Amino acid sequence: MRKIIIGVMGPGEKATAIDVQNAYELGKLIATQGWVLLTGGRNVGVMDAASRGAKSVNGLTIGILPCYDSQGISEAVDITIFTDMGNARNNINVLSSHVVIACGMGAGTASEICLALKGNKKVILLSVDEESQNFFQKLAPKNVYVVNDVENTMALTKQILNHTKT
Amino acid sequence: MRKIIIGVMGPGEKATAIDVQNAYELGKLIATQGWVLLTGGRNVGVMDAASRGAKSVNGLTIGILPCYDSQGISEAVDITIFTDMGNARNNINVLSSHVVIACGMGAGTASEICLALKGNKKVILLSVDEESQNFFQKLAPKNVYVVNDVENTMALTKQILNHTKT
Amino acid sequence: MRKIIIGVMGPGEKATAIDVQNAYELGKLIATQGWVLLTGGRNVGVMDAASRGAKSVNGLTIGILPCYDSQGISEAVDITIFTDMGNARNNINVLSSHVVIACGMGAGTASEICLALKGNKKVILLSVDEESQNFFQKLAPKNVYVVNDVENTMALTKQILNHTKT
Amino acid sequence: MRKIIIGVMGPGEKATAIDVQNAYELGKLIATQGWVLLTGGRNVGVMDAASRGAKSVNGLTIGILPCYDSQGISEAVDITIFTDMGNARNNINVLSSHVVIACGMGAGTASEICLALKGNKKVILLSVDEESQNFFQKLAPKNVYVVNDVENTMALTKQILNHTKT
Repeated sequence: MRKIIIGVMGPGEKATAIDVQNAYELGKLIATQGWVLLTGGRNVGVMDAASRGAKSVNGLTIGILPCYDSQGISEAVDITIFTDMGNARNNINVLSSHVVIACGMGAGTASEICLALKGNKKVILLSVDEESQNFFQKLAPKNVYVVNDVENTMALTKQILNHTKT
Repeated sequence: MRKIIIGVMGPGEKATAIDVQNAYELGKLIATQGWVLLTGGRNVGVMDAASRGAKSVNGLTIGILPCYDSQGISEAVDITIFTDMGNARNNINVLSSHVVIACGMGAGTASEICLALKGNKKVILLSVDEESQNFFQKLAPKNVYVVNDVENTMALTKQILNHTKT
Repeated sequence: MRKIIIGVMGPGEKATAIDVQNAYELGKLIATQGWVLLTGGRNVGVMDAASRGAKSVNGLTIGILPCYDSQGISEAVDITIFTDMGNARNNINVLSSHVVIACGMGAGTASEICLALKGNKKVILLSVDEESQNFFQKLAPKNVYVVNDVENTMALTKQILNHTKT
Repeated sequence: MRKIIIGVMGPGEKATAIDVQNAYELGKLIATQGWVLLTGGRNVGVMDAASRGAKSVNGLTIGILPCYDSQGISEAVDITIFTDMGNARNNINVLSSHVVIACGMGAGTASEICLALKGNKKVILLSVDEESQNFFQKLAPKNVYVVNDVENTMALTKQILNHTKT
């Protein structure tokens, strides 16, 4: 009965135009597969774009929010989980995702990648800079994948799901 | 876009036969209204019964789990949120619910009622003993409602939702 | 090497004059024993009074704060632990205390008592109303103690510590 | 009244001999300054070594534990804070530290650095590899400092404390 949840993490206010475009496309493709999209739930950057992408094809979207009230929530989030625990909620984001996709980079996103690796999750890095690739691939060579486009991200996600006991 | 989430809290291993029966019925009626059911997600007592009730009419069920892996999860939960934060996750349960229904009593359930009241949420107590009624009604007279059957619980839930800014 | 930590919980803004007086006295007596005082750390009510009492005899005081910055902290707290997790920090308060003393009543305090009982901790209720006594003694008859003055609270605390594997 | 808390983060089971030696020395020097040492509190690697170093000169040591019981705690920890929230407690570690020192590298340590940077804290990286230096210095150039010995770590810590509103 348990649904497949794919987590898309990435910068909020500081997301680049490419991060946002990738996130929207990812959200759309994840929902098309029938998977549930999980993000940090706020109405900015990668979280918002991925959620809007998923809703554009009637997907189901979850937002794990750092706050306790409805200010600043993405309108494209269906299921709002209010943690009121700030950035500590990043651990919940990754523990609840079957696969974690990092779409862009920043301190918050990097904390999610680290917590995912600490929890022995597979992480896909999409369009991140060279320093990030080098750092994370050295940190956890078996659990980190580097890709440069949305299609390969999706192919890799399917492959990981096939090899994971869900 | 945000869906209405109704939280049903109650004992796990120590749930009575009546708690379990009420929970199943509540889950079913909540799902029939098109609302999402939120519970603590484990495969025992009120959590499990409410989730099974909701699934019996194809509802959507969320489980906010105290753990980080899939052991002990109710099979009737669609969306598994792994918090790995034990009973501190009780605060997330109630903050994420538009209305909180306590179905039976125990230390964990009582903590959820208290945290809900602390967060200024409305709480419906279904079939709880006299000591619980007296305690919680004195603690928060404006936010606590006492009922004795599932039908009145549902009527009251609708009334609260009508008067709440969701 | 591990120090004995005694948690004093109670209302903040809504504490009564008696709660505050009891808390100050408790803080003082706890520190006199060489025990560490743990509270919720804010500069109001029972938390503040207990911490000031402990400092009046050069005790060591810990505050487990709901926030992430220094606004609203009691000046009598030595060790500030910033959780940024709101009321979910109540679980940390009680898990970290060898004995939990509730000094007065309110929704937050009640949540701490419940979480303590859920975690199988002993809880002493000092000067709480009849409804609270009846409720908690029925909820966990073996772990709840009711007393009416600070001296008995201290005597009971010593007794519990003697019988607890710390 | 609030004491200065210095957080020393680093690998547990996977700490290198140099990490452990640095951590012990750091703990000793931090305690000598009259500062409180904060670690993750377990009886392995950097956490344990730093705590033992601090206790060797009668310092005060805090452990923010991921668990809820006393198994696996460093014997050199005075104040045990039980969070029962796994790696989400990493956020508490860094929010509670005036300065964060990373002594060695791993997924958990990296998550602490990221959460510290997200919370706008200064972080000193001691003896970390080139990939880590490049990654974190690019991520937050104004808040990350790279050093290669314990003496420079201490000098830098003092400098940061002088410029920080505590």
